[in-house]
Amino acid sequence: MFHTYNRHVPQPRIITLTTDFGLSDSYVGQLKGAALAVDPKMRIVDLCHEVPPGDIRAGAYILETGFAVFPRGTVHLAVVDPGVGGRRRPIVVRTEEYRFVGPDNGVLSRALRRQPALGVYRIEAAHYQRESPSATFDGRDRFAPVAAWLARGAAVEHVGPEIDDMVLLPDPPLEPARGQATRVPVVHVDRFGSVVLDVTLETLKRVLGREPAGSLVRVKSASHETSRFLRTFVDSGDAEPFLLVNSAGYLEIAVRDGRADERLELRAGDSVELFLASG
Amino acid sequence: MFHTYNRHVPQPRIITLTTDFGLSDSYVGQLKGAALAVDPKMRIVDLCHEVPPGDIRAGAYILETGFAVFPRGTVHLAVVDPGVGGRRRPIVVRTEEYRFVGPDNGVLSRALRRQPALGVYRIEAAHYQRESPSATFDGRDRFAPVAAWLARGAAVEHVGPEIDDMVLLPDPPLEPARGQATRVPVVHVDRFGSVVLDVTLETLKRVLGREPAGSLVRVKSASHETSRFLRTFVDSGDAEPFLLVNSAGYLEIAVRDGRADERLELRAGDSVELFLASG
Amino acid sequence: MFHTYNRHVPQPRIITLTTDFGLSDSYVGQLKGAALAVDPKMRIVDLCHEVPPGDIRAGAYILETGFAVFPRGTVHLAVVDPGVGGRRRPIVVRTEEYRFVGPDNGVLSRALRRQPALGVYRIEAAHYQRESPSATFDGRDRFAPVAAWLARGAAVEHVGPEIDDMVLLPDPPLEPARGQATRVPVVHVDRFGSVVLDVTLETLKRVLGREPAGSLVRVKSASHETSRFLRTFVDSGDAEPFLLVNSAGYLEIAVRDGRADERLELRAGDSVELFLASG
Repeated sequence: MFHTYNRHVPQPRIITLTTDFGLSDSYVGQLKGAALAVDPKMRIVDLCHEVPPGDIRAGAYILETGFAVFPRGTVHLAVVDPGVGGRRRPIVVRTEEYRFVGPDNGVLSRALRRQPALGVYRIEAAHYQRESPSATFDGRDRFAPVAAWLARGAAVEHVGPEIDDMVLLPDPPLEPARGQATRVPVVHVDRFGSVVLDVTLETLKRVLGREPAGSLVRVKSASHETSRFLRTFVDSGDAEPFLLVNSAGYLEIAVRDGRADERLELRAGDSVELFLASG
Repeated sequence: MFHTYNRHVPQPRIITLTTDFGLSDSYVGQLKGAALAVDPKMRIVDLCHEVPPGDIRAGAYILETGFAVFPRGTVHLAVVDPGVGGRRRPIVVRTEEYRFVGPDNGVLSRALRRQPALGVYRIEAAHYQRESPSATFDGRDRFAPVAAWLARGAAVEHVGPEIDDMVLLPDPPLEPARGQATRVPVVHVDRFGSVVLDVTLETLKRVLGREPAGSLVRVKSASHETSRFLRTFVDSGDAEPFLLVNSAGYLEIAVRDGRADERLELRAGDSVELFLASG
Repeated sequence: MFHTYNRHVPQPRIITLTTDFGLSDSYVGQLKGAALAVDPKMRIVDLCHEVPPGDIRAGAYILETGFAVFPRGTVHLAVVDPGVGGRRRPIVVRTEEYRFVGPDNGVLSRALRRQPALGVYRIEAAHYQRESPSATFDGRDRFAPVAAWLARGAAVEHVGPEIDDMVLLPDPPLEPARGQATRVPVVHVDRFGSVVLDVTLETLKRVLGREPAGSLVRVKSASHETSRFLRTFVDSGDAEPFLLVNSAGYLEIAVRDGRADERLELRAGDSVELFLASG
């Protein structure tokens, strides 16, 4: 009934979950039950369930920041799915180290900036899904069982036909240019109030031609401006906003022992002005 | 010290948890520790911990909607227990596929509408419980260890004597009648703001004598009325409330990309008027 | 690459997590991924992630109340770490039954009141940590992998050198004296609104020279005073505040079916007046 994905890839039988289901219903538990019904020895790890309802971009960021820590062979399932029951396709994506399962609405696409897709497959095989699926809960009835079969060793090719027109989120707006201001979106505000900008350390290095630490990196919101670039929170001796590269490799505005989002009045979806110059 | 429950039932060693403990204390972790102390290889899955404090009816609905996805042999533990330390009994219920553990206050009873009880047992055997139990935390000291022993294979008969007067929640109020209005309670509001009514698809079919889709199903709150019956969220082309059967088989009022509870000003415990007629 | 911790101690391969990371990011998931990358068969249990940001004292209380339920050999990881990136040390503490991993800022110290430290080690060995650690996420890059290696059987001695100046939180203020009022801090307010005082049953017994139940135990806040000492919630026939010893062995102010914190206007960090007399 299933086939070895790759004889040379270890199968740790781990699934991660990223959803907008929250924790006040049994929805997340039902995903896990559906996966355990395929294999009761599966390990299922929550990446995050507090993605704002229907916010594909936020879900894509959460998945991007979390997936790569897991051991090779892990299956990552993301369900932020406002189009459930409609015509958006259920897909599986294969990369060098992982497989990703979810709706084809862009939620998987940011992760693939870090680890390119080697193949995208439309989920069709009924024997990998639950019988009598409901019209509104593909997470339980399709995605979780497919993820579990993949984690057990099923080959992605047996899930359905390969496709070549997967939906991708737009890349971050303009590539910031050296010596001129660029608007950059706030992609996420974390638990501690840190404001994550949609600019990676790699982008900063490419534009600046060097490490950002010795360069000029200035961020300006409606109410604040800072060009103080630090390595870590404790390097800030005061409660003023500063910039750092966060643990996911993104440029972030932070305040030591305080909330940058409140100080700068910024939320996910807002944007700031970024100015880069070489020292 | 323990006995095989049934040689022909596989024992997946899975426990699910449904509680009103929330996630800001170590209470849920302690339940898990108490189960792992019985068997460190146990798999313990959260169904939901955000049941409103002491709300037996809400806990019963959460358990009802989640338990049946899990593999045969799973043990379901529910602790919504305002009477802990008093005279309410700790019980185990055996059904065709599962065992349920919890206080005898009705929290298990809605699940048993879907899978009838084959036996109810009062927990007495001290060797399945923690030594020196506290007066206020039966979840940790009694229920979790008993659940773990059952999941390991202990026979329900060894937990304590069978009883025949288990506490049941009242069935949903009046059976709605065709052609006349009935008041129906709101049993739950989910993460997305959908308003779940205490009427199942089976009840609708029985009353209507056919599928509800082609019939007249009208729901009326103080401020709104809708008889638009859809199959799924994306079938709604606008932001107006509509009706659908949710993934647990209950009639639900929903709004696409919005919150029905806010639009209709409804909360769990409120009620609406339901009118059914055959097309 | 690793050594048996102790041939006579069973290794259940369980890690518990206590953090202030919340659940709206992928941070907790990343801790788990980093541990599973060391050993994909690890069992990882959440003790609590809703410790208020940077609140070492609250984290220490949560860990203290939860760790001892787990089977011998469990590794307890606590990350409440406002000093990450600075000079505070990463440590491992060995006790009779467990090992604890976390920053050396006091977060582990309350647990050690219950189970004394047999050795404290500074984490140095690079081969137990992730390569290219970030400056701001020791939880993922150091603590979780070290915890996983310990849970697999690595010896604490191989993690780094023993130290003898671990940071401890101050002990609870004055030992309350019989027959005179003492100020006692509120150490925690739980999900149900119960107000936990930093006084254990053992302290009460020692000061009173007997069980508190038959003695006079009076607690006074700015707005309320109670000396009603009960064994459990259901023993309260009304909605007035009362005292009980909670399931972690601490003196607690509670209200049946209500919130004591709201009634007494008390929060963690506040204090109350405690008066003890022998009956």
